[in-house]
Amino acid sequence: MSLKVAIAGVTGAVGQEFLTLLKERNFPATEYKMLASARSAGKNMEFLGKEYTIEELGENSFDGIDIALFSASGTVSKKYGPIAAEAGCVVVDNSSAFRMDPNTPLVVPEINPEAIKTNKGIIANPNCSTIIGIVPVWPLHKTNPVKRMVVSTYQAVSGAGWQAMEELKQQVQEVLDGKEPVPHTFKHSCAFNCFSHDSEIGENGYNVEEMKMLNETRKIFGDNNIQITTTCVRVPVFRTHCESINLQFTNPITPEEVRDILSKAPGVKIVDDRINNHFPMPSEASGQNDILVGRIRQDFSIANNCGINIFVAGDQIRKGAALNAIQIAELLV
Amino acid sequence: MSLKVAIAGVTGAVGQEFLTLLKERNFPATEYKMLASARSAGKNMEFLGKEYTIEELGENSFDGIDIALFSASGTVSKKYGPIAAEAGCVVVDNSSAFRMDPNTPLVVPEINPEAIKTNKGIIANPNCSTIIGIVPVWPLHKTNPVKRMVVSTYQAVSGAGWQAMEELKQQVQEVLDGKEPVPHTFKHSCAFNCFSHDSEIGENGYNVEEMKMLNETRKIFGDNNIQITTTCVRVPVFRTHCESINLQFTNPITPEEVRDILSKAPGVKIVDDRINNHFPMPSEASGQNDILVGRIRQDFSIANNCGINIFVAGDQIRKGAALNAIQIAELLV
Repeated sequence: MSLKVAIAGVTGAVGQEFLTLLKERNFPATEYKMLASARSAGKNMEFLGKEYTIEELGENSFDGIDIALFSASGTVSKKYGPIAAEAGCVVVDNSSAFRMDPNTPLVVPEINPEAIKTNKGIIANPNCSTIIGIVPVWPLHKTNPVKRMVVSTYQAVSGAGWQAMEELKQQVQEVLDGKEPVPHTFKHSCAFNCFSHDSEIGENGYNVEEMKMLNETRKIFGDNNIQITTTCVRVPVFRTHCESINLQFTNPITPEEVRDILSKAPGVKIVDDRINNHFPMPSEASGQNDILVGRIRQDFSIANNCGINIFVAGDQIRKGAALNAIQIAELLV
Repeated sequence: MSLKVAIAGVTGAVGQEFLTLLKERNFPATEYKMLASARSAGKNMEFLGKEYTIEELGENSFDGIDIALFSASGTVSKKYGPIAAEAGCVVVDNSSAFRMDPNTPLVVPEINPEAIKTNKGIIANPNCSTIIGIVPVWPLHKTNPVKRMVVSTYQAVSGAGWQAMEELKQQVQEVLDGKEPVPHTFKHSCAFNCFSHDSEIGENGYNVEEMKMLNETRKIFGDNNIQITTTCVRVPVFRTHCESINLQFTNPITPEEVRDILSKAPGVKIVDDRINNHFPMPSEASGQNDILVGRIRQDFSIANNCGINIFVAGDQIRKGAALNAIQIAELLV
């Protein structure tokens, strides 16, 4: 049985994580094709003991390919996603291009794996902050519907790519050396600073990242009644997004019930040690597949014990992007 | 007219900020007394062109003193606060020792200055996160009572003192040099990491910082009905706490009304430039007296336009501690 896999955007942060995970998980591909922009085309790379020459992504890149993992810009996905689908391969697209398209399933394997079956050649991978927030919320929502979520994020700079990590390193060193850091990737210096998420801001005052968390969650949950309000913030962390999530449920719920449900939930690991003040942190979630969940507490500001607070940390390059896409590819296989 | 002021804990982060602010604001003291623990006693220091020898805080430190600014541990305040009050001076205490004592006023000058009059020799200065969150919320609450607040904090390490700032610097350098950082002040490394607040955790799962924000706000607002739920988190920032605050009001309210009310509110500066993605940040709030407020948006997850989201940043050593105490002292004068 042959299984040919193309990786579009192989040189990026998520593209590189695709390779790590394909290897780690023994993905059953028989052949790989490494694709990138003209800038990287022609470069040689090694993967699983084999030499590859990176090819420039083009209209004929997908002939004979079975699965294409895309991690490029929305513009690239919009152009080449349909071409790849037309060529007969299934695209798992990490961009926002098709996420809200009614004909494209938007999938988190722990939540709505069945949606994969409805694909017409393209399956969308949700936004990183969406995935990290909802993997632990879904099993609770299934048991006791969540009426409203209030979310504040603590997002790593690497959500904006490799160069943002380099910039954080450089700016931090500049500050330590007594220099004024100069921002490039972001509008503001990220060294020892927090700032509102760098995505575009709409008429209603919400940035694109915040709107994604609302709209994508409703689509993935198949529930347009769930209310969600979000504030997305960048923090000087290399990798792993954290989220402070306040949940209002339909019926009463206790922290013990939450712990019980989450201890059996896939993709979730409880880190909730009050005695040692040990809770989810980027330093421990980075490089992990699971979303860490802790600070599980009753929210006493909501009547009848219908409120719960949690704090989560998830590697946004792994489960927030590459891992989720590869889990989708595994379901396709 | 003579006005003798003692500073207890003058060598600490807040103690040093007291000096900066007393100078900056031309505080009308005629004489100062510099007090600290035995470790710093005997050291010489200069203030406003005069030489001082730091004295060890003791039972006779307050004879003839009019106002004592305390920024020491709760234990020190508990012991020496009543001794100072007994000696006839008014103590403005920055510790948590007397904040919830029914006989001690807990004061934010922009909110409840009249409470000062009820003092019996001690006035408590609220917790930094409490002050920073409620200075902008109070003018809104007065106009349209807040029913419920959901708060997530982004707290600077310097809330734990000077040594925490040094530790952040050192750990960041260690990470840049490829070494494993070793935590001292906190249980976890603060370099490129976020973690749950380092205060003790109670039976209900909330840490002391979170409980302070609830209990102190109710006392300062004189309103035991306001519901508040908080998640307190440390971020790798030297100075300035940020807070993501979700507000549920009694009556409908628009972002324009919020802007209008806050533009006239004391101690608050609106930084809410959507076009340039310019909102409150530690890099701009540090060293400022005002609390910066931005990301003012309708919360569409609450019915009838009764919800608002804001994001605030305030220098927790200034308005969150030293400035608020000195404003209280100014009212006393």
